[in-house]
Amino acid sequence: MLTELKVPERLLLGPGPANVDPRVLRAMATPVIGHLDPAFIRVMDETIQYLRQVWRTQNRLTVPLSATGSGGMEAVMVNLLEPGDEVVVGICGLFGQRMADVAARAGARVRTVEAPWGRPLDPEQFEKALRERPAKVVAFVHGETSTGVLQPVEPIVEIARRYGALVVADCVTSLGSVPVEVDRWGLDAAYSCSQKGLGAPPGMAPVTFSERALEVIRSRKTKVQSWYLDLNLLMGYWSGETVTERVYHHTAPIAMIYALREALRIVLEEGLENRWERIRRVHEAFVAGIEAMGLEMLVEKPYRLAPLNTVKVPPGVDAAAVQRRLLEMDIEIAGGFGPLKGQIWRIGLMGYNAQPKNVFTVLSALEMALREQGYPVSPGLGPAAAAAALKG
Amino acid sequence: MLTELKVPERLLLGPGPANVDPRVLRAMATPVIGHLDPAFIRVMDETIQYLRQVWRTQNRLTVPLSATGSGGMEAVMVNLLEPGDEVVVGICGLFGQRMADVAARAGARVRTVEAPWGRPLDPEQFEKALRERPAKVVAFVHGETSTGVLQPVEPIVEIARRYGALVVADCVTSLGSVPVEVDRWGLDAAYSCSQKGLGAPPGMAPVTFSERALEVIRSRKTKVQSWYLDLNLLMGYWSGETVTERVYHHTAPIAMIYALREALRIVLEEGLENRWERIRRVHEAFVAGIEAMGLEMLVEKPYRLAPLNTVKVPPGVDAAAVQRRLLEMDIEIAGGFGPLKGQIWRIGLMGYNAQPKNVFTVLSALEMALREQGYPVSPGLGPAAAAAALKG
Repeated sequence: MLTELKVPERLLLGPGPANVDPRVLRAMATPVIGHLDPAFIRVMDETIQYLRQVWRTQNRLTVPLSATGSGGMEAVMVNLLEPGDEVVVGICGLFGQRMADVAARAGARVRTVEAPWGRPLDPEQFEKALRERPAKVVAFVHGETSTGVLQPVEPIVEIARRYGALVVADCVTSLGSVPVEVDRWGLDAAYSCSQKGLGAPPGMAPVTFSERALEVIRSRKTKVQSWYLDLNLLMGYWSGETVTERVYHHTAPIAMIYALREALRIVLEEGLENRWERIRRVHEAFVAGIEAMGLEMLVEKPYRLAPLNTVKVPPGVDAAAVQRRLLEMDIEIAGGFGPLKGQIWRIGLMGYNAQPKNVFTVLSALEMALREQGYPVSPGLGPAAAAAALKG
Repeated sequence: MLTELKVPERLLLGPGPANVDPRVLRAMATPVIGHLDPAFIRVMDETIQYLRQVWRTQNRLTVPLSATGSGGMEAVMVNLLEPGDEVVVGICGLFGQRMADVAARAGARVRTVEAPWGRPLDPEQFEKALRERPAKVVAFVHGETSTGVLQPVEPIVEIARRYGALVVADCVTSLGSVPVEVDRWGLDAAYSCSQKGLGAPPGMAPVTFSERALEVIRSRKTKVQSWYLDLNLLMGYWSGETVTERVYHHTAPIAMIYALREALRIVLEEGLENRWERIRRVHEAFVAGIEAMGLEMLVEKPYRLAPLNTVKVPPGVDAAAVQRRLLEMDIEIAGGFGPLKGQIWRIGLMGYNAQPKNVFTVLSALEMALREQGYPVSPGLGPAAAAAALKG
């Protein structure tokens, strides 16, 4: 009954978690120390400094929450919104839907602007919604994990600012993989996860809030409905001015913070721009291979989310069977959700996994699985095109 | 700037986290796999089976939540309570206060029954409160981490049952250290953490719910205010009947679940009864040493929480200075909160750390720090008395 933990070694090319640099696993196995230990406070401070660099922000309130990315979404919503507040949420995939659900549970009056899954939101729609009635918060997904769409941020921020709304962006699949410029863009709140672009295991939710957002949180009329995610309380633990002023809130997940710190250090050692460039090149090689195989990308070129490629399933091919065939070879890719179920594959080349060798592996395996289902593709076409793109 | 992670090797004898068995650290560094991988679903199922044994329950809804112990508290409250519901909360320390705060944020009408910090709650007070007006939930702390009091459970359950209330117990510092008998006692919901009696790093919150509680959650009139902790949604991920039915909710913290699974396996290999007995013996040896040194325990003998010893600070001694002196020797102990600030030390001998050698270490170090402050104690008195108690 009490068996040894045994798990296969998978190549994780789904929407995340991605594989983790062995350095991160080693850091995670560092002996645990106390959550109020001055030595741990130093680790917290370093982690915050690294996070600010990765978010491209000076925001004081920049912390990793003790939850996964969805917990980060919830934290942002329940801290910024009070019952009856107006919020406009952009929906063009599962995570936009989730934002609307979470905002409604916080008691907000939610209006939505929508686009078909696989297309970006139209900024004009936000303008229309705000002209009808102002809102406290405008929220949208920067990198939509369910569709592979990268949403242009600045036009939405410009409109929201003009109508006096705070701007919230879901950066779960964008942070660490493509440019995220919190301060330059003027985002008021953003959240992400640890297991995609940053390259740690899942379990932490980095969040950042502008001074304007901080002021909104500090001057709430009602208590934040979640004690666990109440930033008024969490600030006392994460952002005390000196070590002795830290106030106990909850026990931080020490080992996960070790892992996140090491993952952030690896990101900064590589350099954000280099990392974005690496992921872009690997993405383009992958797309070249896919198109050489006669397959199509779901998303139009200008809106493709580089770390998460969404490929249309060709007619007559069983999407789930292809995924199972790859998993037999210890390669994980994912399928679509909701309206895209059975219609797309989601193939992630993010963080540590954005490497040419993984492009060759997944294209070759995909060709093999497709041929087995009778899809006509000459062996080696995809990898050859990817190799050519990498050279070019 | 981008420095190596460096933390001291501490002996963690505060209220938790405790030190972690090296086996748990090794398990945590196992390569990450996907949260929907059939191989991970097996790991989840095994973890649930182990958890049921440790909670002494057959409860179907027994899962580790992706949060720390305080997140477990919040999950129990927000799932069982709807706005306007009546709840009676017992308060005799910080964590009872926190329960009342969390319940109020869930919109419940909170009444409290109280006892001085360091004393257990009087069951009669619950009866009085319920006679005045019935309540949906009665909640109390089994092992109060802020005071070291172990609350007798059965008298409170008997009263709550008689008045038709659900019974919730905070087992954050009791699970894995002292008997917790969810089914035999008739608890309807209980939550704990990973970093104390169970011996993993902090970051997971095991929770368990009776069929009665499950029915209450399923038949709610309003949505659970927290999407992240909504058990109606989480059940689809954790408790699907078959692998193929699992529904994605959030990305589970894979590495933390590896760690928790290994920690639970270690608990079950030792055997719960053996573990309780080991912790009791170590606790008694520690108390013998403390009393030989002329110090006093805060809590009366029948109500002492074995894994967390609360020792009164003698007059004229600076509690915080003693803690700092021990930390210089890489030994962490904790002080008191609120009314007990400066009045007690909290010295944990839990999980992996409940070993005779640690009793000798902490008593010797405490003697040394006390002598340095002019407290009269002959060197070696405490360890000698502890050794005698271990033999007896």
